Amino acid sequence: MGSSRNLKLTVQYDGTAYAGLQIQPNARTIQGELENSCRTVFGPDVCLTAAGRTDAGVHALGQVVGVRTQARVPTERVPAALNSVLPPDIAVVSAAEMPDDFHARYSATGKVYRYTILNRAAPSPFLRDVAWHVPEPLDVAAMRSAGEALVGRHDFTSFCTAQSEATSRERVLRALRAERQGDLVLVILEASGFLWKMARSIVGTLVEVGAGRLEAEQVRGILAARERSAAGPTAPPQGLCLLRVIY
Amino acid sequence: MGSSRNLKLTVQYDGTAYAGLQIQPNARTIQGELENSCRTVFGPDVCLTAAGRTDAGVHALGQVVGVRTQARVPTERVPAALNSVLPPDIAVVSAAEMPDDFHARYSATGKVYRYTILNRAAPSPFLRDVAWHVPEPLDVAAMRSAGEALVGRHDFTSFCTAQSEATSRERVLRALRAERQGDLVLVILEASGFLWKMARSIVGTLVEVGAGRLEAEQVRGILAARERSAAGPTAPPQGLCLLRVIY
Repeated sequence: MGSSRNLKLTVQYDGTAYAGLQIQPNARTIQGELENSCRTVFGPDVCLTAAGRTDAGVHALGQVVGVRTQARVPTERVPAALNSVLPPDIAVVSAAEMPDDFHARYSATGKVYRYTILNRAAPSPFLRDVAWHVPEPLDVAAMRSAGEALVGRHDFTSFCTAQSEATSRERVLRALRAERQGDLVLVILEASGFLWKMARSIVGTLVEVGAGRLEAEQVRGILAARERSAAGPTAPPQGLCLLRVIY
Repeated sequence: MGSSRNLKLTVQYDGTAYAGLQIQPNARTIQGELENSCRTVFGPDVCLTAAGRTDAGVHALGQVVGVRTQARVPTERVPAALNSVLPPDIAVVSAAEMPDDFHARYSATGKVYRYTILNRAAPSPFLRDVAWHVPEPLDVAAMRSAGEALVGRHDFTSFCTAQSEATSRERVLRALRAERQGDLVLVILEASGFLWKMARSIVGTLVEVGAGRLEAEQVRGILAARERSAAGPTAPPQGLCLLRVIY
């Protein structure tokens, strides 16, 4: 049988054409494609774990997928082997052999997401699948000040979907940065973990502040309310991208 | 009848789904879509001229289209009106009223193109339609030095398709910049005008130099040969983008 290897894959994907990361019956999923390609390259007994789920239409530049396999494909050849069978909207950019106790999900100590807003009157042909088009001018300083109220250890019930099955809704938002780069407004969020739709609920609320429909000072009260209806709408999925998983 | 207005539109498009800019029977073209949208907004008697043709799969961030119309749509509302009927891979980002003698093509004194190369082992899910994936490491300093030999007024017969119908193949390449930005190698070309496939022939030859299959010093000889077969292959269309038209 030989001993099994524990590989850490870094994966990028354009989530536009997928029903999300997690395997579902009768739907194309990122994990489904990754499993198919891994079976082709490593054989049928391969076992995959992703660091975190992403919703339909959400992207990744640094998703991490753990693979346990007894196959002897040299680690440095794994990305090219997988990319040769993966569809072009998913790519493995690196592979590393990890100690046996490394677990893509449970070993993660944090995640970094980026949300991209196109903030100009005209839509962009190049960004329609990777940004939220908000035509009204956004006050990024107000968004930043609203975001500061959310940083820290909090119960984020106001900023997650009511369907969240998490046993605790307490998370540590370690950093929130909002910055303008030309026509783009980028929001970078780093947390110990994210509740379901937490990043998009926070961004949806910050855009309400940036557009002047909500005062930055109100965000503290929204957080304290612990009720989803207190916050702004959920930002659409295509602006969201999982940048990095921290171990 | 009223007097006609001469509008200058700045247009962005993702050329992936199109047979190029120029109208063709039985093919989807950028100009075809622009004409349809202009007829909807301005009425049937509208007349369009683009600054320059782009090939199938080539993109634009700053194509210029001249529109003559007697319709009274306020200029500042023209982009939103056109964008509401254009497909999402074409967008009008600005409109300006010009003097009667402005002509999108004949008034242009130059054009700036950018060519994007993804230079890393793994392909990118996000750049597959907007970059040429060259996995072997490129020596950008060698590409820059080869490019310098092309700057100036030259007969560019070696760097245009044999089907070119241009009466003169002399053009002024005003500047050529090659630079690395992380995994990307960008080539920016500014010229008085470009022959058919000139930008892509130059980039294809520079990549031969960057990959070490051609010496930078040989490029001067290739230019002097005035024969297309002397130069490197034509780079694929998806990396090319018309950045700006100069007036």
